[in-house]
Amino acid sequence: MRATVMYGAGDVRIETVPDARVIESTDAVVAVSHACICGSDLWPYKTMEHSDTGRRMGHEAIGVVDAVGADVRTMKVGDLVIIPFAYSDGTCVFCHEALHTSCVRGGFFGVEGMDGAQAEAVRVPQADGTLFVLPVSKDDALMPSLLTLSDVMGTGHHAAVIAKVSPGKTVAVVGDGAVGLCGVIAARRLGAEQIIILGRHADRIALAREFGATNVVSERGDEAVERVRQLTGGYGVHSVLECVGLEQSMLTAISIARPRGAVGRVGVPQGETMAGSQPAFYNNITVGGGPAPVRAYIDELLPDILEGRIEPGKVFDRVVGLDDVPDGYRAMDQRESIKVMVEP
Amino acid sequence: MRATVMYGAGDVRIETVPDARVIESTDAVVAVSHACICGSDLWPYKTMEHSDTGRRMGHEAIGVVDAVGADVRTMKVGDLVIIPFAYSDGTCVFCHEALHTSCVRGGFFGVEGMDGAQAEAVRVPQADGTLFVLPVSKDDALMPSLLTLSDVMGTGHHAAVIAKVSPGKTVAVVGDGAVGLCGVIAARRLGAEQIIILGRHADRIALAREFGATNVVSERGDEAVERVRQLTGGYGVHSVLECVGLEQSMLTAISIARPRGAVGRVGVPQGETMAGSQPAFYNNITVGGGPAPVRAYIDELLPDILEGRIEPGKVFDRVVGLDDVPDGYRAMDQRESIKVMVEP
Repeated sequence: MRATVMYGAGDVRIETVPDARVIESTDAVVAVSHACICGSDLWPYKTMEHSDTGRRMGHEAIGVVDAVGADVRTMKVGDLVIIPFAYSDGTCVFCHEALHTSCVRGGFFGVEGMDGAQAEAVRVPQADGTLFVLPVSKDDALMPSLLTLSDVMGTGHHAAVIAKVSPGKTVAVVGDGAVGLCGVIAARRLGAEQIIILGRHADRIALAREFGATNVVSERGDEAVERVRQLTGGYGVHSVLECVGLEQSMLTAISIARPRGAVGRVGVPQGETMAGSQPAFYNNITVGGGPAPVRAYIDELLPDILEGRIEPGKVFDRVVGLDDVPDGYRAMDQRESIKVMVEP
Repeated sequence: MRATVMYGAGDVRIETVPDARVIESTDAVVAVSHACICGSDLWPYKTMEHSDTGRRMGHEAIGVVDAVGADVRTMKVGDLVIIPFAYSDGTCVFCHEALHTSCVRGGFFGVEGMDGAQAEAVRVPQADGTLFVLPVSKDDALMPSLLTLSDVMGTGHHAAVIAKVSPGKTVAVVGDGAVGLCGVIAARRLGAEQIIILGRHADRIALAREFGATNVVSERGDEAVERVRQLTGGYGVHSVLECVGLEQSMLTAISIARPRGAVGRVGVPQGETMAGSQPAFYNNITVGGGPAPVRAYIDELLPDILEGRIEPGKVFDRVVGLDDVPDGYRAMDQRESIKVMVEP
């Protein structure tokens, strides 16, 4: 089968690899119908050291079950399923607490030893706990929005939940990538009264407004902090969704939170330490978040997609086949594209 | 009047200063009957650069109202009051949200331009919002415990609240100073099932056990993390109370929290950045806390003291007059004393 392999910064190749197959009795093999490129894939695209063996890429997909192990109970060959970016057994103590990303038998796609989703097929461990069977066909027009349930919509929702967004709250979203944009959807969906997007790309800002952003702050650093304060009576916002992961964006996030505010961070942190420890302390700001348990959120978010109340699939502004995945990375890295969908 | 002034590291003096007096119409002057030395006073005691003018010290006290400004309504001369470590108007948006330490007209005692509580008297701004009138006399045997409501008991409670301690939870307390010990009381009071104290001083550990600690971990760093994991089925604790403020203690706090755990930090952070950003992220750990709104907690904690259910006053193991305050600093700094009470 063909799959995406990254060998180093800027070096993404489509190669023929051994076919995905059932290894454990709890595995399924899924033929990928829709995948995508993630903002987090751009970190290794910028910085990865050369590897002779390469790394399989991709962790967001929808596909059709092609084979199941002997112990798989909740799906059958031919079912259309969402593959969340983490696999999980659905039965451990953390899955029961709805934190599937900490599953004791879980792990992530697109890491050492695991298949990636930017490929023709994927071996999915813990299939019963991981996969979510969809009630539609793979030609459904909702496919782009459903695909976001594998990561970005669930991740934006996680940021909003951890940032304690609730009706009437003031919210800021740091970052105008696909996750930030889904964060705007999530904040509006949870009842936020004011939603300030911090970003500077015209296409993304336009989409943020369509999704419900009420204000745009295009400044950076101290000037951005000042603007947000002006927009919020001088005190900052109740809830901040940090959707970047850089030291500077985290410092901005903490600096625009009002006293007793909450920051939900879902941008993968690129540094060992967190900036803003002292302002967070003196203002009693809570910082939480991490890899989103998107598997846990599908039940809640799916009806809103099926019934048309949210359209996160609009973050996809380019569709490529597998051969054009390397160019998809380039386009996202150069901000030509918000998010690229892959149809293998 | 006489007051404590710090001129630099290790240089604490008792001096005659101008009498405290009413300046604003919302002020009160309180004659201090009981004050104390705080663990946070030891930071400048270790590191303060020489100052020609010095800094008034002390921010925890009980005393008798000696004078009130024309606009003070809720107390009269002769009332016995708790002076929390921050003053606050009780009416602003943050006071209404029970975050008195962020009061828009508030501030702290023992900082530039403000009186300190290790003195014969204190000018208290925003007296109506700040002071809490006690229903007992100043000779009451409960005075040491009531004095802890000005800071350490409220601060330990804040750590526990932010760390989401609730019935059945597993809890770790990092630090065996007076705040950590009060954190043990708070964790037990809120129903924690297991309370692990991280500390290594025999006298403090003994008191921690008396207050409800179920386990003691005297190791440090990675060994401490390993021990806590062993004590908690391998996963770490639900709630961590960080009562130190150093980079290493914060890293330990994050490392012993289980996935989706919460760290409530009340140790004043000594660094600009926070260690443990990545493990906190990957385990979806929430970090919150800051200066405790102790004024907000008095209503809840006072009955437990008056009715003998908690005895935080046991953290005081030495009582000095004003002249011996410098020796009190020395004794606390050298760990001869857990916490020193001052009777001016």
